[in-house]
Amino acid sequence: MSFKQFSAIALPEIEKELQAQIARLNQPRLHPFHAMLTYHMGWTGEGAGPEAAGKRIRPLLVLLAVSAARGAAWQIGLPAAAAVELVHNFSLVHDDVQDNSDKRRGRPTAWKKWGVPMAINVGDALFVIGNQAILDLGKTLPASTVTQAASILSAACLDLTRGQYLDMSYEGRTDLGLDEYWPMIGGKTSALLAACAELGALIGGANAEEREGYRLFGHHLGLAFQVQDDALGIWGDESVTGKSAASDLVEGKNSLPILFALEKIPAFAKRWAQGSIQADEVAELAALLEREGAKTYALETAQRETEKALTFLEKADPGGEAGETLLELANMLLKRKQ
Amino acid sequence: MSFKQFSAIALPEIEKELQAQIARLNQPRLHPFHAMLTYHMGWTGEGAGPEAAGKRIRPLLVLLAVSAARGAAWQIGLPAAAAVELVHNFSLVHDDVQDNSDKRRGRPTAWKKWGVPMAINVGDALFVIGNQAILDLGKTLPASTVTQAASILSAACLDLTRGQYLDMSYEGRTDLGLDEYWPMIGGKTSALLAACAELGALIGGANAEEREGYRLFGHHLGLAFQVQDDALGIWGDESVTGKSAASDLVEGKNSLPILFALEKIPAFAKRWAQGSIQADEVAELAALLEREGAKTYALETAQRETEKALTFLEKADPGGEAGETLLELANMLLKRKQ
Repeated sequence: MSFKQFSAIALPEIEKELQAQIARLNQPRLHPFHAMLTYHMGWTGEGAGPEAAGKRIRPLLVLLAVSAARGAAWQIGLPAAAAVELVHNFSLVHDDVQDNSDKRRGRPTAWKKWGVPMAINVGDALFVIGNQAILDLGKTLPASTVTQAASILSAACLDLTRGQYLDMSYEGRTDLGLDEYWPMIGGKTSALLAACAELGALIGGANAEEREGYRLFGHHLGLAFQVQDDALGIWGDESVTGKSAASDLVEGKNSLPILFALEKIPAFAKRWAQGSIQADEVAELAALLEREGAKTYALETAQRETEKALTFLEKADPGGEAGETLLELANMLLKRKQ
Repeated sequence: MSFKQFSAIALPEIEKELQAQIARLNQPRLHPFHAMLTYHMGWTGEGAGPEAAGKRIRPLLVLLAVSAARGAAWQIGLPAAAAVELVHNFSLVHDDVQDNSDKRRGRPTAWKKWGVPMAINVGDALFVIGNQAILDLGKTLPASTVTQAASILSAACLDLTRGQYLDMSYEGRTDLGLDEYWPMIGGKTSALLAACAELGALIGGANAEEREGYRLFGHHLGLAFQVQDDALGIWGDESVTGKSAASDLVEGKNSLPILFALEKIPAFAKRWAQGSIQADEVAELAALLEREGAKTYALETAQRETEKALTFLEKADPGGEAGETLLELANMLLKRKQ
């Protein structure tokens, strides 16, 4: 089954599960609160729809790993699929507050619509419901599997806060280099993707060794994905042409090419230390970074992480149609051009 | 054993468990992040000490319920005791951001010291570690008990976000009355105390009926405690004399006497709608509220909730020395004069 076919079947089930989880807040007096969560999830309010909801990559990864591990029915993984997506969205809502971001998937962010105090609470609620969702695995699985799943999810959540701390702590620092990149991105991006793959394998009945293979697959998939995203953030179509303000250079993001440049390109490090990059400098700086090897470095790094991810996936030996679909998902994520 | 004696034995163990849980962040690159949590917990930084740590009422309640339920050793409840205190502190850190509060237990709040983005992340980390702590019950208890405990804790956390939403949504509203009080305070104060008592009973081996008794004891204990606190917020020594700015009237808190007054005392409702109460109006308004029955109403309500709490505790039939200590804790909380 192609990834597209699988998505067409699984996505409606994922949305149904997410909606059922969030309905915990669909109660008298709480309807406006419930509506804040359904807005953020992309279901209600102006601009609602699939674009606003996002791609649901993480729950799809969970479900494919469930089936690929031992041929189990992916449906038993739905509570875990909902849990990871809820946790992801909790982190997005708080991230938007922390980064002062006005827009998320083309729409005003939660804090922009309802203020920072409400948005903090919306994020908190998404997080709590994520924790409740993972416990719902107990409806079909033994309690010992549920506590393992909850541990995996919580460990990833702590990594999210670690990565977030590092990212924020880098702000205003002028002594950054490549060493600062991996622990940050390991927490911010990879930890949850690693947890998705591991959770799927656990739920699907994989043994400890296989689970570790799935986890490492997810981990390197996350790193490769992030490094690619970082390259697109400077040399992607949107970043260079047209909307240069969208460049990571202007946003001051601690991305891989930028940390490479801070370490290796003195002229860039000097400019960076002088304060925010303006939109009209973007084309020239992007060219400088490319000339000095930052783009090649990023693309080679992405390639290396991609190969690691695929090697671990191969070792984990995913089976059946779901295994092929999982490989397709990985390739899709890793070869995307924007 | 008196509550004082029990505290002297149990508090060091609680602190040790809390420190071990938070040590998950005591890692290379993360020391400043770890220090933010240890500062908030009252262990490090200027003004550190028992005053800064708070009374740890919630973990003590868990541990006493563990022993009172069936005579079990309270030590097996330590991971749950740490979990409820971590969750409580997560909610305090976010609450301080949401309320724009500069001080907590006499010291600058986390956001005041490190900014809002960092404080949000500190709260998130405390919450995650609380979730991890509860799973540590699995070291001595069966997985099915652990998943029940995690469900109880998460349900209380969702109630916290419900109560927080209601509290924030009341801001600026001039049509509030007593009906708005109970759902808010049930979430903000009672839910976690109810969870403490229920968790203790569960861990101690109580059956479902007994657990429900403990839960309702904690619930009404929380309500009684909050109503008393609300009365002290207007008529306590600190509120009327000396530091009138500390009055709930000035802080615009949605407390029981104020919601009573908004519903029953038109002169007060009119003044409230005109904007913030100033410190020099506090004495007169407190007297008006007392004259018109708000104080009597609050004290009678606290008395009624106290009786309910004690009735449920009696029904739950706590045993042994711990049972007496639990009763002492309840009486101490409920009869305090400030």
